[in-house]
Amino acid sequence: MPLTDSIFAFQIDKTDGKARTGVLRTAHGEVATPVFMPCGTYGAVKGITPDQLHDAGVQMVLANAYHLMLRPGAETVAEMGGLHKMMAWDSPILTDSGGFQVFSLPALRKVSDDGVVFQSHINGDTVELTPETCMDVQAKLGADIIMQLDECPPADAPKEHVAEAVRRSAAWAGRCKAALEKNGAGSLFGIQQGGVFLDLRARSAEALVELDLPGYAVGGLSVGEGHEKMKAVLEHIDGQFPREKPRYLMGVGEPRDIIAAVACGIDMFDCVLPTRNGRNAQAFTWSGRVKLRNSAFAGDTRPLDENCNCYTCRNFSRATLRHYFQAGEMLAATLVTIHNLAFFSQLTSEIRRAIADGELEARSRKWGEQMYSD
Amino acid sequence: MPLTDSIFAFQIDKTDGKARTGVLRTAHGEVATPVFMPCGTYGAVKGITPDQLHDAGVQMVLANAYHLMLRPGAETVAEMGGLHKMMAWDSPILTDSGGFQVFSLPALRKVSDDGVVFQSHINGDTVELTPETCMDVQAKLGADIIMQLDECPPADAPKEHVAEAVRRSAAWAGRCKAALEKNGAGSLFGIQQGGVFLDLRARSAEALVELDLPGYAVGGLSVGEGHEKMKAVLEHIDGQFPREKPRYLMGVGEPRDIIAAVACGIDMFDCVLPTRNGRNAQAFTWSGRVKLRNSAFAGDTRPLDENCNCYTCRNFSRATLRHYFQAGEMLAATLVTIHNLAFFSQLTSEIRRAIADGELEARSRKWGEQMYSD
Repeated sequence: MPLTDSIFAFQIDKTDGKARTGVLRTAHGEVATPVFMPCGTYGAVKGITPDQLHDAGVQMVLANAYHLMLRPGAETVAEMGGLHKMMAWDSPILTDSGGFQVFSLPALRKVSDDGVVFQSHINGDTVELTPETCMDVQAKLGADIIMQLDECPPADAPKEHVAEAVRRSAAWAGRCKAALEKNGAGSLFGIQQGGVFLDLRARSAEALVELDLPGYAVGGLSVGEGHEKMKAVLEHIDGQFPREKPRYLMGVGEPRDIIAAVACGIDMFDCVLPTRNGRNAQAFTWSGRVKLRNSAFAGDTRPLDENCNCYTCRNFSRATLRHYFQAGEMLAATLVTIHNLAFFSQLTSEIRRAIADGELEARSRKWGEQMYSD
Repeated sequence: MPLTDSIFAFQIDKTDGKARTGVLRTAHGEVATPVFMPCGTYGAVKGITPDQLHDAGVQMVLANAYHLMLRPGAETVAEMGGLHKMMAWDSPILTDSGGFQVFSLPALRKVSDDGVVFQSHINGDTVELTPETCMDVQAKLGADIIMQLDECPPADAPKEHVAEAVRRSAAWAGRCKAALEKNGAGSLFGIQQGGVFLDLRARSAEALVELDLPGYAVGGLSVGEGHEKMKAVLEHIDGQFPREKPRYLMGVGEPRDIIAAVACGIDMFDCVLPTRNGRNAQAFTWSGRVKLRNSAFAGDTRPLDENCNCYTCRNFSRATLRHYFQAGEMLAATLVTIHNLAFFSQLTSEIRRAIADGELEARSRKWGEQMYSD
């Protein structure tokens, strides 16, 4: 999958404060932003077919380069015709670099300025991930947007460690860009690090912006720092990154965090919440979460959300979904995941509408009160 | 769900030897026979939405009265609006009586002429199942075809035990009919027992036919007796049961057995094979089974079956399906189950065509050679 095939553009339509609506143009179609991307870790959104993804309003999915390079392997995916063909998803895909996953492996890795060496959690093989191999892997996967290799320190890392990660990640971003330019530049996003240290965040952004990349991601958040500290970092990004480039907040997530981040000028999100919680019997609705294992729902013939038009809400009651979970029926996970994905599509769609109407702040307050009343 | 709502008729269209094509007419639509019904034990075909069932050509599903009476309970299903509403399936449903399941519980039951008392495998509750309660449960579930309570002895039961089961099952059939007639007769099928003893099979059929029921099932087969002994029993059923009534072979199954049973005059089948094997990475095709965990399929970019037009074969390669199984992706089970259900739909559809063309025997031989060559 030569990256020269990829086209990429971003256009802002409406703004409301720092928030904006826009369109991402890729070789696999357009995406209205702000957008939420569900996770298809191994090249499948758990339990959901591509048809069901489209029906739930999903525009774009994320897949994990780390997982795919270990199984089935980037070469194998390329032989299958690339990730789009492999997973039968003809809409845009973003692949992450594997950095976050590798740095989540506790004792299995060795980091240097060159890159990171780790042991595969699948077969114990020693694997080297450098900015160059990372670009090679993602080029083979053939996603529309690819991420630089970065170093992602834990939430409680001391400032010196975070500063080191900022320096290293910036250098790696440059090497990723150089590696890509050899075979035609693609839609590479840089990743800001810096933890909750605002000076380090600024330094990280500056180094990335100098590289003039197609887009910028905010990494290293949603790792346990909490809603307020996350917001404190995000409040600065509109000044740190050029307005005309898309901005992606990695690993977020919670509706409250998405709403706050959009107000700070974020355009893209990914998270396992709708899929993981769906499998665990938890549904997102405009009036908060529905925990379907609660016996109160045994006789509840209403849909998960009266105002939702997803396949699950059109066809199944809370009582049926609860029964399926109690009986261990795997269809339960699929049906609630479908609903949750539709909810995140509706949430971002309502956010786009509120921005277009210039009413994001007022509506966000109302949504927050409905969703987090208890 | 008053049973007076149910309409039921069976009409034979074409015959080829003892084999026949026909139409079952129910309150929830028509079913072309011979038909295969997948199992929706707890009111869900595992991992498959009603939309996906329809797409795979499924005409009718089976649900288990035994499982549903224990969880969520027949009353609860009735409060949900009945089984069709609960599982969002607007096509015909058949519920079995629970007899087979209860008699599979080793030490948990006590049988008498009155009925069977057993302990719930879910909460240890003592539950009584009599012909009368069995009709009551199934009336509450509201299926289109319901089954009598029967006693199903194990494959190795001595003849005296099987004779006793025949006597008891016939008596219970009469009581089921009487119980139903009080609130309007429904589409009750009697169940023949008798193991592999031809004299007992004849005696059992005779007693059931005397009751003039809407349809007749052959029970107590596919319990380990093997293909040849099953055929030896089935060869007599065309003479034992009236031609104008539908005949249902319970718990079968294997394509070879279905083909042989149709040639003996069977119209209906149910089995967990397509769904259970789908979850276990085994696909049915016209050239035999594909065991997707085999490493030979890692680079196989062909669909499961070149001639299959199911959602899975239109979109996914064997390599992708194998990767999903290796990675523990639950979508693998869903996709291969969809294919297997489509295969069983195609198989019965081809069988109906062969009967209409008067070529069942020749084509059956060809299919068997293709499917069971190794």
